Amino acid sequence: MKKNLIVGIMGGGKASPEDIDAAYRLGTLIAKQGWVLLNGGRNAGIMDASARGAWDEGGITVGILPDRTYNRMSEYIKIPVLTGMGDARNTINVLSSHIIVACPGQAGTISEVALALKNHKKVILMNFETGPVFSDYIKQGLLSHAETPEEVIERINAMVA
Amino acid sequence: MKKNLIVGIMGGGKASPEDIDAAYRLGTLIAKQGWVLLNGGRNAGIMDASARGAWDEGGITVGILPDRTYNRMSEYIKIPVLTGMGDARNTINVLSSHIIVACPGQAGTISEVALALKNHKKVILMNFETGPVFSDYIKQGLLSHAETPEEVIERINAMVA
Amino acid sequence: MKKNLIVGIMGGGKASPEDIDAAYRLGTLIAKQGWVLLNGGRNAGIMDASARGAWDEGGITVGILPDRTYNRMSEYIKIPVLTGMGDARNTINVLSSHIIVACPGQAGTISEVALALKNHKKVILMNFETGPVFSDYIKQGLLSHAETPEEVIERINAMVA
Amino acid sequence: MKKNLIVGIMGGGKASPEDIDAAYRLGTLIAKQGWVLLNGGRNAGIMDASARGAWDEGGITVGILPDRTYNRMSEYIKIPVLTGMGDARNTINVLSSHIIVACPGQAGTISEVALALKNHKKVILMNFETGPVFSDYIKQGLLSHAETPEEVIERINAMVA
Repeated sequence: MKKNLIVGIMGGGKASPEDIDAAYRLGTLIAKQGWVLLNGGRNAGIMDASARGAWDEGGITVGILPDRTYNRMSEYIKIPVLTGMGDARNTINVLSSHIIVACPGQAGTISEVALALKNHKKVILMNFETGPVFSDYIKQGLLSHAETPEEVIERINAMVA
Repeated sequence: MKKNLIVGIMGGGKASPEDIDAAYRLGTLIAKQGWVLLNGGRNAGIMDASARGAWDEGGITVGILPDRTYNRMSEYIKIPVLTGMGDARNTINVLSSHIIVACPGQAGTISEVALALKNHKKVILMNFETGPVFSDYIKQGLLSHAETPEEVIERINAMVA
Repeated sequence: MKKNLIVGIMGGGKASPEDIDAAYRLGTLIAKQGWVLLNGGRNAGIMDASARGAWDEGGITVGILPDRTYNRMSEYIKIPVLTGMGDARNTINVLSSHIIVACPGQAGTISEVALALKNHKKVILMNFETGPVFSDYIKQGLLSHAETPEEVIERINAMVA
Repeated sequence: MKKNLIVGIMGGGKASPEDIDAAYRLGTLIAKQGWVLLNGGRNAGIMDASARGAWDEGGITVGILPDRTYNRMSEYIKIPVLTGMGDARNTINVLSSHIIVACPGQAGTISEVALALKNHKKVILMNFETGPVFSDYIKQGLLSHAETPEEVIERINAMVA
């Protein structure tokens, strides 16, 4: 495993209060482990909440932004990467993460789950049910489910052991 | 509608003989309509078959390749676009298509369906069942199903009418 | 050489009347040779003029647009490719061209000359003096100068012979 | 100015011993200022030397890699970003840097200087003479020269004051 484990947190720009809360707690736990949190960097939904959680614990947060400016950036991103390439940056999000956690989201989040699996990355769905579309990848051991931030951390620690 | 309607055909690099045959027939029908066929440009699966179909009818085929060389290009691509950006080119595939037809595939194809829907493009699934993951987009009228190439053509003609 | 020779025309979004005229004439000559003209696709400067020239002769024009919409597209582009990735599409412009012709331009055009040379593509500078910065590539036979559209065509024909 | 100033160091994968030494010293000085060092992330030339300098001073180093694997990564990169997009990542390098320092290099480095200037970023050439090709940008105050790492630091401090 790399010197710094980079955990990618994907999820919707719009999210329910429960999902926001879980994403925040997940961010805090990732920082407490000493891991780097990477996400899409915007000041919305799961991105903002997970970055805020890690930030509050003094963790390193990396945001891979779709834009070429800082206008829509979360203020909890320590290392912003401006791509200027819109959704094409989703590929960078998953390639740059050692492990991906997907929180509930819409098509953008699903594209990231799909791109991660295509690139043989391990993906944990946290309270996010995608139906049978990715069932082959569950069989291959790449895709799994977790219900709480604590369970996600436990799962990642087992993966990197 | 644009002067040249560009129809994007997505689908697996590995495909069953039935899906290969349907993709070939879809390619021929798209060319007969005078439409441009766009796909991922590789010499495999749905990409190669759909390009071959359009090519055999004298149609224009555009291939958006993940590579920076022609090594893995389908010989039925008339206009190759070399991106050198791997899966990030999936975003270009869907942005450049007026309408997307998704044939059966794995995670790469699902990423393209998701990226298309995120960008408000109409997607027709041809004999490809993705389960409930995209059901919101069916309700919005962006995602629909078809069983045969002929039905796809009929559907597209209704969309552009 | 490939079935369809693709000639990339680079140059400024702002251009002098003389350069616009030369780009238009170069476009017509490329179409008369049966070659595909590829450029950045916008409705400005060298891009618009060269596409218009090829279009007026019935040639195929491919535009690799920085945007995700058709708003700033030249109306003389037959095959638009929407990348949504801003300047990162400059790399696609040069990778997708067999030979590059650079007309006068500013930093954007110079980035394309540089990216082309880095990728071992032949570049012809038409009435465009870049100084000693690329002199190593002149020695390597990758970079050369021409004064007129007719001289460019002659040079390309010698290259592909 | 942003919370963390991000200084991008560009330069050749091949470099002279003098340029390697200057890049190393520049890296140490950037880290001592508390700035983030960003570069192309590879284990070669100016990239490796500048990252090593910052690393030795305990600084944060961000590498925007062209590859989708860690195979060619400098071991002195703390935050690796895998783009899998080859030279198209040059655009990300310059967009993500508040200020760019260009050390001697070939066409790849020149493409980064050009892309930076096109995006209105300030560029300091350290012992790197590019001739008259960018003289308009010197007049605009975007491009300047420095001879030593110490002079670069002084210049950046004046810019952000």
